[in-house]
Amino acid sequence: MHIGMVGLGRMGGNMVERLRAAGIEVTGFDMNPETSEVASLADLVAALPQPRRVVWVMVPAGEPTAAVLRDLADLLDEDDVVVEGGNSHFQEDKANAATLSAQGVRYVDVGVSGGVWGRDNGYGLMAGGEKDDIDLLMPVFDALRPEGPREEGFVHAGPVGAGHYAKMVHNGIEYGLMQAYAEGYQLLESREDLIPDVGAVFTAWRRGTVVRSWLLDLMVRAVQEDPGLDDITGWVEDSGEGRWTIMEAIDEAVPVPVISAALFARFSSRLPNSSAMRAVAALRKQFGGHSVKAADPGAAPTATGTPDPAVDPE
Amino acid sequence: MHIGMVGLGRMGGNMVERLRAAGIEVTGFDMNPETSEVASLADLVAALPQPRRVVWVMVPAGEPTAAVLRDLADLLDEDDVVVEGGNSHFQEDKANAATLSAQGVRYVDVGVSGGVWGRDNGYGLMAGGEKDDIDLLMPVFDALRPEGPREEGFVHAGPVGAGHYAKMVHNGIEYGLMQAYAEGYQLLESREDLIPDVGAVFTAWRRGTVVRSWLLDLMVRAVQEDPGLDDITGWVEDSGEGRWTIMEAIDEAVPVPVISAALFARFSSRLPNSSAMRAVAALRKQFGGHSVKAADPGAAPTATGTPDPAVDPE
Amino acid sequence: MHIGMVGLGRMGGNMVERLRAAGIEVTGFDMNPETSEVASLADLVAALPQPRRVVWVMVPAGEPTAAVLRDLADLLDEDDVVVEGGNSHFQEDKANAATLSAQGVRYVDVGVSGGVWGRDNGYGLMAGGEKDDIDLLMPVFDALRPEGPREEGFVHAGPVGAGHYAKMVHNGIEYGLMQAYAEGYQLLESREDLIPDVGAVFTAWRRGTVVRSWLLDLMVRAVQEDPGLDDITGWVEDSGEGRWTIMEAIDEAVPVPVISAALFARFSSRLPNSSAMRAVAALRKQFGGHSVKAADPGAAPTATGTPDPAVDPE
Amino acid sequence: MHIGMVGLGRMGGNMVERLRAAGIEVTGFDMNPETSEVASLADLVAALPQPRRVVWVMVPAGEPTAAVLRDLADLLDEDDVVVEGGNSHFQEDKANAATLSAQGVRYVDVGVSGGVWGRDNGYGLMAGGEKDDIDLLMPVFDALRPEGPREEGFVHAGPVGAGHYAKMVHNGIEYGLMQAYAEGYQLLESREDLIPDVGAVFTAWRRGTVVRSWLLDLMVRAVQEDPGLDDITGWVEDSGEGRWTIMEAIDEAVPVPVISAALFARFSSRLPNSSAMRAVAALRKQFGGHSVKAADPGAAPTATGTPDPAVDPE
Repeated sequence: MHIGMVGLGRMGGNMVERLRAAGIEVTGFDMNPETSEVASLADLVAALPQPRRVVWVMVPAGEPTAAVLRDLADLLDEDDVVVEGGNSHFQEDKANAATLSAQGVRYVDVGVSGGVWGRDNGYGLMAGGEKDDIDLLMPVFDALRPEGPREEGFVHAGPVGAGHYAKMVHNGIEYGLMQAYAEGYQLLESREDLIPDVGAVFTAWRRGTVVRSWLLDLMVRAVQEDPGLDDITGWVEDSGEGRWTIMEAIDEAVPVPVISAALFARFSSRLPNSSAMRAVAALRKQFGGHSVKAADPGAAPTATGTPDPAVDPE
Repeated sequence: MHIGMVGLGRMGGNMVERLRAAGIEVTGFDMNPETSEVASLADLVAALPQPRRVVWVMVPAGEPTAAVLRDLADLLDEDDVVVEGGNSHFQEDKANAATLSAQGVRYVDVGVSGGVWGRDNGYGLMAGGEKDDIDLLMPVFDALRPEGPREEGFVHAGPVGAGHYAKMVHNGIEYGLMQAYAEGYQLLESREDLIPDVGAVFTAWRRGTVVRSWLLDLMVRAVQEDPGLDDITGWVEDSGEGRWTIMEAIDEAVPVPVISAALFARFSSRLPNSSAMRAVAALRKQFGGHSVKAADPGAAPTATGTPDPAVDPE
Repeated sequence: MHIGMVGLGRMGGNMVERLRAAGIEVTGFDMNPETSEVASLADLVAALPQPRRVVWVMVPAGEPTAAVLRDLADLLDEDDVVVEGGNSHFQEDKANAATLSAQGVRYVDVGVSGGVWGRDNGYGLMAGGEKDDIDLLMPVFDALRPEGPREEGFVHAGPVGAGHYAKMVHNGIEYGLMQAYAEGYQLLESREDLIPDVGAVFTAWRRGTVVRSWLLDLMVRAVQEDPGLDDITGWVEDSGEGRWTIMEAIDEAVPVPVISAALFARFSSRLPNSSAMRAVAALRKQFGGHSVKAADPGAAPTATGTPDPAVDPE
Repeated sequence: MHIGMVGLGRMGGNMVERLRAAGIEVTGFDMNPETSEVASLADLVAALPQPRRVVWVMVPAGEPTAAVLRDLADLLDEDDVVVEGGNSHFQEDKANAATLSAQGVRYVDVGVSGGVWGRDNGYGLMAGGEKDDIDLLMPVFDALRPEGPREEGFVHAGPVGAGHYAKMVHNGIEYGLMQAYAEGYQLLESREDLIPDVGAVFTAWRRGTVVRSWLLDLMVRAVQEDPGLDDITGWVEDSGEGRWTIMEAIDEAVPVPVISAALFARFSSRLPNSSAMRAVAALRKQFGGHSVKAADPGAAPTATGTPDPAVDPE
């Protein structure tokens, strides 16, 4: 089999390596001429065998992906297949499919999980689309997914959009899992008198326990590289899919207290002196004469009066 | 009526003023000789009319309160009444009552709300104890509580412990209310393009709206004194009763997601670089090669490899 | 002054009464001919004095509002003003304004708070639009808002959209406030041994306490009408603005743990046997042999084996 | 090596089997004479080789464990070792150790994870105590723990109490992990149009994905046995260690929004018509005339007035 890959970054590039190692022929295109294997998207399409050319798109979500799909709609023919393997929102998939189907081109959306480890371990794959197209792509999926039973690393989740929907929920769950481990980490660390080596406890959880997981293995790797996690700061980005998960949950009236708590913890980590908490501090000062931390660290507490020798009026 | 007040700090001192303004005679004792009106607790007790002397205790919870109660158990006689008006945990009330009842001394616990405003506005009062003792104290309660119907500023909530229980729950609710306003404040502030003056919006909520409240009035006062709340930092203490509320809720299997979210927001406000969020950042780096913020602000991101031109592998 | 009111339901109808009581002349139109005072929207427009006719729209958000605005765009002339006083999303306001401005018609959005009490108490008003239009409408705002200083019941919050934005955030806060009281209510109720009359405690919080508020007053009213709140079930709807608040907060990366916890509590109240909790129960059964509640209430627990006489393996 | 095991229930009994399979000699005692291998605790102690007898206790936490430890304190001699492998609170460990040390008997606390699967897979072990005692017990730990490097299934976490502390935090994390998967499960299930087979998606996450874990494997097993999870109800117990985790976190001022959200979700699952949500419904009715669900399902909504044809006054 011979497919095209658009986008040769950290994800796309690794996937190409894994595909080739499995005997799939790949022609790769990237906006970066140093990385690209052909001069243009048109050249990539021209290099692929007909009929039923397959182009896998692995570029940033939003306009970059949309632009590639528009170009491909012009370059491809009836029954060719475009695979959107990036992080598109599941609602964009319908628009994407419509763009292509005007030319008779088929569309499959695939959620790809596994991060930078996927090249060696294989990627978890969730696909949305029509059975006929999924069947055509199966050798590609088999090459990308981990070893083991197919159904444990690949799913045809449903119609167009289902792949990215499943991946979105996957990422929402991931937020919750990470935050659960993180809370436990901090709690263990708070009791250095009892638990002198938090990393050793996490390491011991790798086998036999209920909480064993791949994320736990990564956590152990992290503390082995940087005991105490002193080399990084607790300032955590989010890549968007956690937000989408919560918005979709709200649309569906599904309570997601854990996933949202995890996202909000990330937001808070980026707000060291948030106006919300300044508002709470201001309120406490108003009703209780509570001492508050002055904005000028050198200044005295702004609470009027002396500290209460008696009863805290909160 | 003539009672004793032990503890003449911000709360006790204000209460004495309000009591006297209402015609209640008060003898005050404080550990601080400059504030105290008598030389000793014994002198305070000696100054009170018999039978059924009344001593109101308004000192910090825990050992300070326990010490005063032990001394009073020795100094008082049968049917005298001790009122614990501080922030004792409701479970301590039973022990306190037992200490005193060995000498025949009665015990009433009173939760007092209203902060530094209580002197002028009156205090909200929640009492626990026996009806006979509550009746004896009613002139004192009537002097302390706000004008208006008695039942709208005072309640005999139940047996010993009920006063502090009701006050504990009151404070738990207060945490949730404050955080709700704070979240709204921050959200309004995030859209300066739409809402140039957040304080004006809060001010307009004072009349007619569903969210009008005394805390809202205080919030308006805070933004009038310090528009933008720039003079204080978002570092918020907690005084213990929010913690107790949640622990009691857990004991009773009552879900308190809002009250606990409010408490945790305060905890987080004091943890600008928490190990939990460093753990999440470390995990993201492990699985995705995500760039993370280096602990040394001057250092380069520690993620290996160049920023991904393609797909974020989270 | 003489304005038109479109929508004479519970909100619009009450507002008309309040406006007329304040001397504002109003012509009302409703889709329901029994309620409507004129035969058509055209008749309503024809009844208004020129120039600068004012039509206040108070119909359900979404398509019903959009339809009225489209019709008004045709019926009105340059510098006439349409006020959208319903619950439109703030992002719709820009589209609404554009629809009208094509005809030179001005647009003002107003968030109206106060519920069914507004007729007598006055409504809290948050307006978005241009100063010139706001000035024109001021007599109407003054008639609708509560007595007292104007700035404590009305705000010109910002440009078009700001009124509904402020109202949206107001409602988000409201969700948090209500849930905070509700958690406290349940906690008090869980200890009938200590707190035999929860309603009496809430009543006593009305004066002097930190948690006093209009919502608290309503809570007292509710328990007076129905002690124990036995006549209704704990199945709580949401009207959409809480959802919008959280979605907007996520867009702005503002943590809203309390507001979201309040919304999710409502969702959960409508999910008595949710698949999420069935999933947790199923997991516990898998790893621990924990007994679970069989779906058939008459059936035996499905856990294999007898209850553990020793150690719970969770 | 030859040790005694007290408590032969689901956990203790399985552990005996695993120990014997590894060549450790075990004498077992249980309160249930049909299960017990000796007639009394004294007989169990008499059967063990000296010096340095080892008795592993695996009975319910609280008084049952305390009673066994008191008896063992009388029966054992200097330098014998008692292992408390049950679910004691880490704060009880100090009292337990003191009880025994009065007789010179040593105490080690071990958190044991792995549920009913531990017999075959091995148990994750977290131990607290003195190095000398841990060394003595190492053959027992090696027999119980899973195959693989010792440090990946066993940790000497710290002094007495550290084993149960680590296990408590482990269980707190577990609550968060389970709830994260559960929320994702429900969200997938809410979109049957996109995701017709939720179980297939979970199955596909077993390999290659970021969320793969042992709990995920169990989830897959659950949906294989009962697609749709229809045979159980969403009524979830908790065994106490989640509660302890949160209480400890509050004592340490560590925010645990995810772990607490998971616990509260369980509480809520057992409160189908909670007074908290009846309070919210009552409030909505008060301010908005919102229709509420009457307690009598056959009765009409209790809201006065007709449904609002215009604007929802929330």
